[in-house]
Amino acid sequence: MNAPLPAPAPAAAPADLVSRRVAGHSLEAPFYVSDEFFRLDIEAVFARSWIFAAAEAELPEPGDYITVDIGPYSVIAVRDDDENVRAFHNVCRHRGARILNDERGSVGNIVCGYHHWTYGVDGTLLHAESQAPGFDPSCFGLRAVHARTVAGLVFLCLAPEPPADFDEFASTVEPYLAPHNLPRAKVAAQTDLVEHANWKLTMENNRECYHCAGHPELQRCYFPLYNFTEDEVPPALRTTFARFRRADAEARATYESLGLPYAAVEELDTRPTGFRIEREPLDMAGESFTYDGTAAVKRLLADFPTARLGHLGLHLQPNAWFHVAADHAVLFSVVPLAADRTLVRTTWLVHADAEEGTDYDLDTLTGVWATTNEQDAVFVARAQRGIGSPAYVPGPYSPTESQVEDFVNWYVSRLKAHLETDVTAERKAERKADRTAELEER
Amino acid sequence: MNAPLPAPAPAAAPADLVSRRVAGHSLEAPFYVSDEFFRLDIEAVFARSWIFAAAEAELPEPGDYITVDIGPYSVIAVRDDDENVRAFHNVCRHRGARILNDERGSVGNIVCGYHHWTYGVDGTLLHAESQAPGFDPSCFGLRAVHARTVAGLVFLCLAPEPPADFDEFASTVEPYLAPHNLPRAKVAAQTDLVEHANWKLTMENNRECYHCAGHPELQRCYFPLYNFTEDEVPPALRTTFARFRRADAEARATYESLGLPYAAVEELDTRPTGFRIEREPLDMAGESFTYDGTAAVKRLLADFPTARLGHLGLHLQPNAWFHVAADHAVLFSVVPLAADRTLVRTTWLVHADAEEGTDYDLDTLTGVWATTNEQDAVFVARAQRGIGSPAYVPGPYSPTESQVEDFVNWYVSRLKAHLETDVTAERKAERKADRTAELEER
Amino acid sequence: MNAPLPAPAPAAAPADLVSRRVAGHSLEAPFYVSDEFFRLDIEAVFARSWIFAAAEAELPEPGDYITVDIGPYSVIAVRDDDENVRAFHNVCRHRGARILNDERGSVGNIVCGYHHWTYGVDGTLLHAESQAPGFDPSCFGLRAVHARTVAGLVFLCLAPEPPADFDEFASTVEPYLAPHNLPRAKVAAQTDLVEHANWKLTMENNRECYHCAGHPELQRCYFPLYNFTEDEVPPALRTTFARFRRADAEARATYESLGLPYAAVEELDTRPTGFRIEREPLDMAGESFTYDGTAAVKRLLADFPTARLGHLGLHLQPNAWFHVAADHAVLFSVVPLAADRTLVRTTWLVHADAEEGTDYDLDTLTGVWATTNEQDAVFVARAQRGIGSPAYVPGPYSPTESQVEDFVNWYVSRLKAHLETDVTAERKAERKADRTAELEER
Repeated sequence: MNAPLPAPAPAAAPADLVSRRVAGHSLEAPFYVSDEFFRLDIEAVFARSWIFAAAEAELPEPGDYITVDIGPYSVIAVRDDDENVRAFHNVCRHRGARILNDERGSVGNIVCGYHHWTYGVDGTLLHAESQAPGFDPSCFGLRAVHARTVAGLVFLCLAPEPPADFDEFASTVEPYLAPHNLPRAKVAAQTDLVEHANWKLTMENNRECYHCAGHPELQRCYFPLYNFTEDEVPPALRTTFARFRRADAEARATYESLGLPYAAVEELDTRPTGFRIEREPLDMAGESFTYDGTAAVKRLLADFPTARLGHLGLHLQPNAWFHVAADHAVLFSVVPLAADRTLVRTTWLVHADAEEGTDYDLDTLTGVWATTNEQDAVFVARAQRGIGSPAYVPGPYSPTESQVEDFVNWYVSRLKAHLETDVTAERKAERKADRTAELEER
Repeated sequence: MNAPLPAPAPAAAPADLVSRRVAGHSLEAPFYVSDEFFRLDIEAVFARSWIFAAAEAELPEPGDYITVDIGPYSVIAVRDDDENVRAFHNVCRHRGARILNDERGSVGNIVCGYHHWTYGVDGTLLHAESQAPGFDPSCFGLRAVHARTVAGLVFLCLAPEPPADFDEFASTVEPYLAPHNLPRAKVAAQTDLVEHANWKLTMENNRECYHCAGHPELQRCYFPLYNFTEDEVPPALRTTFARFRRADAEARATYESLGLPYAAVEELDTRPTGFRIEREPLDMAGESFTYDGTAAVKRLLADFPTARLGHLGLHLQPNAWFHVAADHAVLFSVVPLAADRTLVRTTWLVHADAEEGTDYDLDTLTGVWATTNEQDAVFVARAQRGIGSPAYVPGPYSPTESQVEDFVNWYVSRLKAHLETDVTAERKAERKADRTAELEER
Repeated sequence: MNAPLPAPAPAAAPADLVSRRVAGHSLEAPFYVSDEFFRLDIEAVFARSWIFAAAEAELPEPGDYITVDIGPYSVIAVRDDDENVRAFHNVCRHRGARILNDERGSVGNIVCGYHHWTYGVDGTLLHAESQAPGFDPSCFGLRAVHARTVAGLVFLCLAPEPPADFDEFASTVEPYLAPHNLPRAKVAAQTDLVEHANWKLTMENNRECYHCAGHPELQRCYFPLYNFTEDEVPPALRTTFARFRRADAEARATYESLGLPYAAVEELDTRPTGFRIEREPLDMAGESFTYDGTAAVKRLLADFPTARLGHLGLHLQPNAWFHVAADHAVLFSVVPLAADRTLVRTTWLVHADAEEGTDYDLDTLTGVWATTNEQDAVFVARAQRGIGSPAYVPGPYSPTESQVEDFVNWYVSRLKAHLETDVTAERKAERKADRTAELEER
């Protein structure tokens, strides 16, 4: 019998908790349960990193917009008249009202419904009624947010200086993604699921298949062999592993013949814009995320000579992952809502001309991942509840959980970088710059 | 394009935020979103100022009471046997139970339902069962709250020393209000609306008509010309302004002939009991707040020779406003519930003998303001959400928003006065006095 | 008229509030309303004391378990293969997931549903898939919680060193309880009621019958004479008191003839495991807690020659009370959920062979206490609301509320003991021991 639990550890400052983190183990409880870390995660991670926000397919035409909530921020992403995606804080420069209050729509100008201040889709203040002489509209444009698109995926960065490695990331993943034509796809379905867990538990859960026995539906088409080397494969999975080896060899041949990049590139904890990409086979029919592995959509995303392309898997820090098959793509984004609540948004993309009912059945298209999401929501909620006990102590990761460790490494390095920055100095500089700009505005 | 947003301002103490407030601009975010300011606002504003709480018409007979919640306080306002309105904290002196748990009712004595301690309507403890010898009931009367009535309106003050300027306020507004007979009116309707915004946003919204294009129903009878001088009137309102000028001239003649005071008295940010009062015309039929401007109630509030009296508008700091027409009065009170939730109570008064169905139709009576309230709830909720973004920065008021600025000036001066008081010294003195009283009780 | 309320007392540290507590009076507001005291109560009281958790009857067979939430802790109580009750923290040693997520059930092993780590009912880690070489399962057993049973009642203690006086408590109360055969009883009913009050108000309410006029149903069978000496009995209860004296004399004769211990033992504020036990008559038929005092269950708990045994009353600090009659037992446990929310669990035990419908009617069995619970929930919610007002000041207990004072004395002494412990030193020692154990595990 184990000794009874010691008293809870004394309350520690985030910096101390970060510095005393034990590698190879889950984080201490405050990282997952405290409001202080929730705020810190927004500030140090979500307001600093490139965040996957949406598919370009959600904004097909000029004037189309979506609103994206990232922690306490609300951002408008809008396609401008030059067909670029731009982004702005969704906050009126008059008295701060949220301007666009729907999740998506289409506008000519961006008009605040409170006092009718009117902005162009480039953020310029075009009209503000009844102002005093000397009021200079050019000082009151919408505040911009950095926006980038890569092969049909929209990324935002709230920081004044976004991580500079985005270009490298983009040029690495673009050749993998481009053949799937995502900029010209359409949204077939989108679901929002609120998980009762810290966002990091949601991400950690995504980064291992050690729990995949809990996903019987997913396991039909998806090889649950994540991160296993041959000698680590547990006995129960040896037959599956043999089947994977055969499918993998066949898939590589196909990828080579079609010129599709497939090699794993793994930069999960080695850079601010951490990612991993690889093209891999699927089980059964090998075409898609369905119960028998056959394509869910007759009309493929591109003119592929075969649907049997397995899937392109892309993992991004801090908040997204993607599975792109020949017939459809599934995009997952994660947004913290509170220390113990997290939004998981799942978006299914199909060819723009694929018709529901004719080319695909919605339940078949979404069944595997919708079911898997629901199962994961149960798992992470249990983790959150358990970690909330003062009896919780960090436990060891299994070797097959190495991407969980990568995620935690990346996360901890982001916190360290943030906490080591002389925040006060930085803000002083910014505030000074801001005051100067204000004075110039007057 | 504007520069990306600087990092959020460093967390600042309330005193710093108060002292660095920029005139002519909306307040910084913490004033509207932080729990710290919510508590400070209760302590510095709502527990110090005279608060409009109810109409006398809600307490017509001796023993009639209402319970009024002001932040964490619950107050009993009761008409005593001498027909005066008195007020007490709704807290039993035994073990602290809330005594009266309904919103209103009628009592002989005030009896706590827990252990049946029984108090008179003058607050005296009349009976407490099974006490030890030496128990002195005279030490355990209900704690009093200051109460005053002015022309049918009930005001409370939770402070030990209420603002001394109440008499001046009362003597100024009484002649305006008295002709409408409110002490002898009856409550025709009362609604409670919870707005998802800080109470100051609710008040600020009330203090400008810059947003009145969002109130098409109200704009039919109400001139949306609030604070515009002739040369500031925007082109779209010039016809309306001309109509207002004609109606105003006619109304002044009527007021003069009837001896009704009408001149604006504006003391919004110049005293603890800040207010503004003025009698003004209404549009269309000019009689009342209805879709065509005709009186909603056949039986007028008093024996006026005409219903065409426009409305008497009274604005009070911190939490109320009033519109009194010939046929009915509408009273609005605002109570903070949380940093981001506010109760707006609206009370419609009509002549005591006016009969629903015969003399007035309830939907016609309440339609304009009930609709306007709902619209305002949407506006202020959008403001609250936008201000919650770290991207919010205070923006400039338009000249037509001068009463918003007055409200904010008044509010900031109240906070300054409170923060500058040597609170510790004051409390020490009070606690010493309290201990002395307790010792005397023994 | 009383003087208006002084300003609220300055915020004080828990240690100051504890040390300035005025005997004979209710506690100051922060004890009941602040989150700080909620956490302190869990740490100093609920994680240090023996807590009544369940009836043994809830775990009749090996493998039967219940999960018990105590503040942020979740505990598994399970009957092991030797038929002993053992307890473990319900937290997986891998990544902290809550293992058992139902309130009760039966298991062979204790299996975490997330990654299938498998523990025996003795807490040993039996299996963890895919671990690296060198992983030592013996280091990752479930963390134990102290568990004890006394005459059919299950007690838990979360502290490393439980109060040593439990044996004395057990040997004192066991002879009173044993004749009622509770280990072999069955659960006839169990209700969970969430009261909107601090847990201490729930306990204080239980510890006096000064409010029993509010329980007309209970007063039919239960003598509401709690703590009254003859000369203190109020006039309205004198007839009742005379009836009590006769019933008491008769009951004592019965207890003597049957060899049932009945004398009061009162140790409510004199030891860590504070309690009071006494056997007393009931009114009317004198057999049970029913509207006419007759037994609710035909089959008695044991082979008593008469059902007219009144009830055995047991009061425990911090969180339980019990009423055991000849035919059934009612067990009450109290668990804090938040500063202002408390769970009251009520469990009715009857003879294992008593059949619902034949031997007892469920509504008759549960009616009196279910109704009383609902009434108490209203009372304590009013107390919580009143105490939340800044106008609340501690008031005096009546002599009949002496057990309330005992509870508060006990509680305050627990806080003092906790606050006086050199917590930092203790934790350092524990953490050092823990690190040593971890190093040994490696």
